[in-house]
Amino acid sequence: MAPIKRPTIADIARRAGVSKGAVSYALNGQPGVSEATRARVLAIAAEIGWQPSLAARTLSGARAQAIGLVVCRPARFLGVEPFFMELISGIESELGSCALMLQTVPDHHAELEVYRRWWGEGRVDGVILVDLHADDVRVPALQELGLPAVVVGHPSVAGSLTSVWSDEVTAMRETTGYLIALGHRRIARVAGLPSLMHTVIRDRAFADACADLEHWTVHTDYTGEQGARATRRLLSSSARPTAILYDNDIMTVAGLSVAQEMGLPVPEELSLVAWDDSPLCQVVRPPLTAVSRDIPAFGAHAARRLLALVEGGPPGSFEVEAARLTPRGSTTRPA
Amino acid sequence: MAPIKRPTIADIARRAGVSKGAVSYALNGQPGVSEATRARVLAIAAEIGWQPSLAARTLSGARAQAIGLVVCRPARFLGVEPFFMELISGIESELGSCALMLQTVPDHHAELEVYRRWWGEGRVDGVILVDLHADDVRVPALQELGLPAVVVGHPSVAGSLTSVWSDEVTAMRETTGYLIALGHRRIARVAGLPSLMHTVIRDRAFADACADLEHWTVHTDYTGEQGARATRRLLSSSARPTAILYDNDIMTVAGLSVAQEMGLPVPEELSLVAWDDSPLCQVVRPPLTAVSRDIPAFGAHAARRLLALVEGGPPGSFEVEAARLTPRGSTTRPA
Repeated sequence: MAPIKRPTIADIARRAGVSKGAVSYALNGQPGVSEATRARVLAIAAEIGWQPSLAARTLSGARAQAIGLVVCRPARFLGVEPFFMELISGIESELGSCALMLQTVPDHHAELEVYRRWWGEGRVDGVILVDLHADDVRVPALQELGLPAVVVGHPSVAGSLTSVWSDEVTAMRETTGYLIALGHRRIARVAGLPSLMHTVIRDRAFADACADLEHWTVHTDYTGEQGARATRRLLSSSARPTAILYDNDIMTVAGLSVAQEMGLPVPEELSLVAWDDSPLCQVVRPPLTAVSRDIPAFGAHAARRLLALVEGGPPGSFEVEAARLTPRGSTTRPA
Repeated sequence: MAPIKRPTIADIARRAGVSKGAVSYALNGQPGVSEATRARVLAIAAEIGWQPSLAARTLSGARAQAIGLVVCRPARFLGVEPFFMELISGIESELGSCALMLQTVPDHHAELEVYRRWWGEGRVDGVILVDLHADDVRVPALQELGLPAVVVGHPSVAGSLTSVWSDEVTAMRETTGYLIALGHRRIARVAGLPSLMHTVIRDRAFADACADLEHWTVHTDYTGEQGARATRRLLSSSARPTAILYDNDIMTVAGLSVAQEMGLPVPEELSLVAWDDSPLCQVVRPPLTAVSRDIPAFGAHAARRLLALVEGGPPGSFEVEAARLTPRGSTTRPA
């Protein structure tokens, strides 16, 4: 079979029995064709689904009408957490007829190659940058490339790029403050990837808030498997924690299962907190106390800022509402 | 601020101090410029990140180098299940430098508008169609449009479009056969959206397999909330089921919580099976017996077939490995 082609001006010309030039005049509202021909050309164009090509519009200086999102995590982690689909659904809610280009890559080098290609080929008008590292190589590279970009992350790592962020330090203080007020004096944190800046920020805020208490931080890859192992190790120590704060929902559920397997009732013997919140947190028993934020709204805000930037709007750092603690059945006073 | 522009031939010409024509000759390997100028032009092009634009390549007859995926589900459902992110990660594993355009839409009418625009504007070379309905309006519309498309779903609803599918009837027979062999005689199914063809296929296969038993089917929107309600209703009937089969993981976890809340130990008093499998199924207690399939491999297969179709390969229906039962701790003989 021959490759399939989309409808072109040549197709319209052939069906209408006129020249391609005449079709072009007719479609562009220029003089040079009769009104009868123009009407016939427009009817045929509508019938066969012709539209001005992206190519023609781009050469005439129009925008790509697309923004890009590159996710640099192993594919198998993507299904583990609802974060990215929620962020994407928020981004899309703002895009209208603008499209989202999505790509997963194995490392930052490959990610930068994608940006160079997309920008060089006129495929995207801008990109949203996620999972920032400390001293992230992508920030200076994007600045140099001149590709409009919005960082979903703290302004301290965004360089001169626009950032959209929420105050994780305040959210961490509120959460640990609540556990301390309940009477907990031995608190552990089962954190995500230590290379990610938001992990670093939460680590520091946790250590600061728990400076006068016994506290532990264990890093994981966000999987339930590593969350379970970290919990088992923490609960096996002689002076075990009475409360554990996890960096996602599935690790918290894994921790709940480990507590059950080790005969420690939740919340009587062990309090658990999930960050972020999710539907999963509400269907398990007990339902999980969680640090909640509106991730779709976060994505929508980032998309709005990027579209404004593409139109020549000012860069800057824009703070969204901080996450807030939602107490449910998995936290109480320590025994 | 002025809108930001990607590097153009004019930028190279200005920096090199030569005409745009000379830059074009140099970049295209044509005669008409000295080797020194060519070297300088290429060095500047590399330095400022210039690439031939998508527009120029498309006008010259090259492909869009992108495929599209439109998801027609309310955004809030996307984060509930890992299915779409797993499918996407599989699709991307086959795309290489080809991009994925992703869009969510509220209904099939909006979905068809997206396809017409993408195809008309030369934005995509083909699309992957998901969540097929019986008598799906998108199938004849895509056939008429001539946009290459691969249906992820049963060939019976794919019309003349290429389909990639797995045998859900066999998987359902294997699953119910196992429960019947364990001794279950009252089996319920908590299903997904009744408008989806794969729900219809599973419904029929379930009813056939359980024809000689007491059986129930309840439809839901895939949320844990509706899964919990359906379970509560089923377990409140006088002759309650001794086994329940759910259409996703989060509803199964919700069902496990309801059993706990109603004092029915799992699996002793109630067996539970999740379809599909997921990391979540393995972190809860007891770990959930599940119907497992390799969703990333499914996505990869669909992408390979679409790329082949775009290159003029034959349409057809292509079967992938059927889902298989993975027994874990949530199923046993009825009390």
